[in-house]
Amino acid sequence: MDILKRLQELFKRFPGIGERQAMRFAYFVATADESYVRSLTEAISAMRKEVRRCARCYALSEKIVDGKCSLCLNPDTDTSILLVIEKDADRERFVKARTHTGTYFVLGGLAPAIEKDAHAHIRIKELHALAEREMSSAGLSEVVLALSATPDGERTEAILLNTLRSLQEKGLVVSVLGKGLSTGTEIEYSDKETLTHALRSRIAFE
Amino acid sequence: MDILKRLQELFKRFPGIGERQAMRFAYFVATADESYVRSLTEAISAMRKEVRRCARCYALSEKIVDGKCSLCLNPDTDTSILLVIEKDADRERFVKARTHTGTYFVLGGLAPAIEKDAHAHIRIKELHALAEREMSSAGLSEVVLALSATPDGERTEAILLNTLRSLQEKGLVVSVLGKGLSTGTEIEYSDKETLTHALRSRIAFE
Amino acid sequence: MDILKRLQELFKRFPGIGERQAMRFAYFVATADESYVRSLTEAISAMRKEVRRCARCYALSEKIVDGKCSLCLNPDTDTSILLVIEKDADRERFVKARTHTGTYFVLGGLAPAIEKDAHAHIRIKELHALAEREMSSAGLSEVVLALSATPDGERTEAILLNTLRSLQEKGLVVSVLGKGLSTGTEIEYSDKETLTHALRSRIAFE
Amino acid sequence: MDILKRLQELFKRFPGIGERQAMRFAYFVATADESYVRSLTEAISAMRKEVRRCARCYALSEKIVDGKCSLCLNPDTDTSILLVIEKDADRERFVKARTHTGTYFVLGGLAPAIEKDAHAHIRIKELHALAEREMSSAGLSEVVLALSATPDGERTEAILLNTLRSLQEKGLVVSVLGKGLSTGTEIEYSDKETLTHALRSRIAFE
Repeated sequence: MDILKRLQELFKRFPGIGERQAMRFAYFVATADESYVRSLTEAISAMRKEVRRCARCYALSEKIVDGKCSLCLNPDTDTSILLVIEKDADRERFVKARTHTGTYFVLGGLAPAIEKDAHAHIRIKELHALAEREMSSAGLSEVVLALSATPDGERTEAILLNTLRSLQEKGLVVSVLGKGLSTGTEIEYSDKETLTHALRSRIAFE
Repeated sequence: MDILKRLQELFKRFPGIGERQAMRFAYFVATADESYVRSLTEAISAMRKEVRRCARCYALSEKIVDGKCSLCLNPDTDTSILLVIEKDADRERFVKARTHTGTYFVLGGLAPAIEKDAHAHIRIKELHALAEREMSSAGLSEVVLALSATPDGERTEAILLNTLRSLQEKGLVVSVLGKGLSTGTEIEYSDKETLTHALRSRIAFE
Repeated sequence: MDILKRLQELFKRFPGIGERQAMRFAYFVATADESYVRSLTEAISAMRKEVRRCARCYALSEKIVDGKCSLCLNPDTDTSILLVIEKDADRERFVKARTHTGTYFVLGGLAPAIEKDAHAHIRIKELHALAEREMSSAGLSEVVLALSATPDGERTEAILLNTLRSLQEKGLVVSVLGKGLSTGTEIEYSDKETLTHALRSRIAFE
Repeated sequence: MDILKRLQELFKRFPGIGERQAMRFAYFVATADESYVRSLTEAISAMRKEVRRCARCYALSEKIVDGKCSLCLNPDTDTSILLVIEKDADRERFVKARTHTGTYFVLGGLAPAIEKDAHAHIRIKELHALAEREMSSAGLSEVVLALSATPDGERTEAILLNTLRSLQEKGLVVSVLGKGLSTGTEIEYSDKETLTHALRSRIAFE
């Protein structure tokens, strides 16, 4: 096969990339500086060698020691509160916000809409096992389901809540993020749930 | 002037309507059912006769008695908490959400970005006067600034807070809506402030 | 019913207007200058009295005499070439371009996709009758189908061509607009048909 | 530096890719199948070895022999007509349309808006030299400027026309693509130039 077409086919598998942009990428790579392209292929190879998933929280990390990422390994990490997130990019948002002091768990996606068995697609069993284990071994007292406020996120939330019900009965707190006004949200385009929670969680100026 | 063009010019002043759509409106009105067009002009005239602004909260209402809307007149309305909103459409969102039990105040817009004197554009003085008056006469204890989470909304919030400072010193609570995940918001596209507040105001399942 | 809601319902029937914008229109009309609103209702009434469809070309016009618009009445109008267009707004584009010297025919829409009988929706029979009549009475020699280059436009083109076939056999030329690069079109996003015609109809600089 | 960040930085240089999508690409590459990633890096390396620009038409090609692409080398290629295009992706559109029988010239971009010297950015001198040479050696009789119908395209067209003026005086025809309705174009949103040319270049049905 034609090498430009072959590269186009490969770039088409990148997330969110269609036929046209894949061809642009192929042309770009064909005509970019030699040093840039070498850096790119080297970085890809290095990534594959050095980056792996943590065996505890399933986050991608390049500092995996004994199977675990540095946050999970660190004895100073607060293990009483666990934040469940959809994917690595979400984890990065929370890490940047410096607002969560505990550990993470990467679900690996949201529950698919049509399929009955979400267990095959996302790490539900692994989450239950981890929460059960750390309730006794690490003082875990709360699991926060920090998923997007979308239909997919809410369906996943319901499934996880159901899964964690037995642990909840043993004292585990299961919570979800608060609704309110996101940055950029206009009142006129907000729904009842958003406004209700925004009003209830209002903050007084000092 | 050409009557189609004249109608187009008039429709161009409707909010959010450009030249093309204004002409479409003119063609639409020219060719719509006679009964529809009669209903339209009659409704516009009735609106002008019956709908006015409340002298207390400045909301548009068709049930103005002694200058006031029915909510402001109702002796059972909770006058301890006042919700300050930008415009009538925002008021309607809160009314529909049935989450606010107190009174409203329609600011009439947001503070303009470049102009120094926002007082000429929005009802800042009127808000201050109302709050001062109702602190003594109606037991007002809290003013909630319920503006959009946009740069314009935040600038207006800062101006209002400044204006209400003297009343705040006399015991008035001034608050703003809580930030959090709005319906539809994805974690990956949320900023630090949204995530931080969403995490702090999380809700535990029972 | 609530007068604001009633006006909102009426504005929702304007082309391209949804619930939110209809309510904005109602608020706008409620709070606009008295003189503006009077001009608006007067213009709507005047429009209804003065603007009608031409009995020959079906264009909306405020200068209808003996049932016909001024262009159709004018003895100097070139009646050898007839431009068939979808709607009044399209006619206005051609009039502004000052490129067509002949007469017009407003089809009143495009053929619906699912319905077998387009005749009930657009003026196909009327077009055939007019073309047949003017071939003998007015020297009509060409009908140009000037429809949008969309699937709906092309389907309608095919139906009209079929309808006009019998007149074509008697010598009527039936043509369609040339394809090529529209203003704003990028080569990279153009299809085969556009490029082929653009290349064939290329223009040499002098 | 962090390897994920490094890869993100490299992907940010891909055309049309911002920070977020670059990070998604990095995560994608980190977690994709081993075989896919190997194919990708191998294809990139192969591309760099095998694909070069033709010394005559400047198109990227993987079949460069004696510095020239197969089209330029083929003795059967029609050398009387030369199509000047902005970039490789545009060339591909014309090749797919199978409408041009002659040769190509890849300009390498459009003339920048602010800079006086377009010569440093696009292959203007090279185009003039090629046209001059092939007028005598290869029977070149026409140069078609096949640029996008955008302000940038039109500015570039004017510059090229000026450059080719001296050859035009020696008999070279310089032409541009015809305007008309592009696939998808609606009459209502078309400008005067598009409609005028579409009407002039209309096609009669047989």
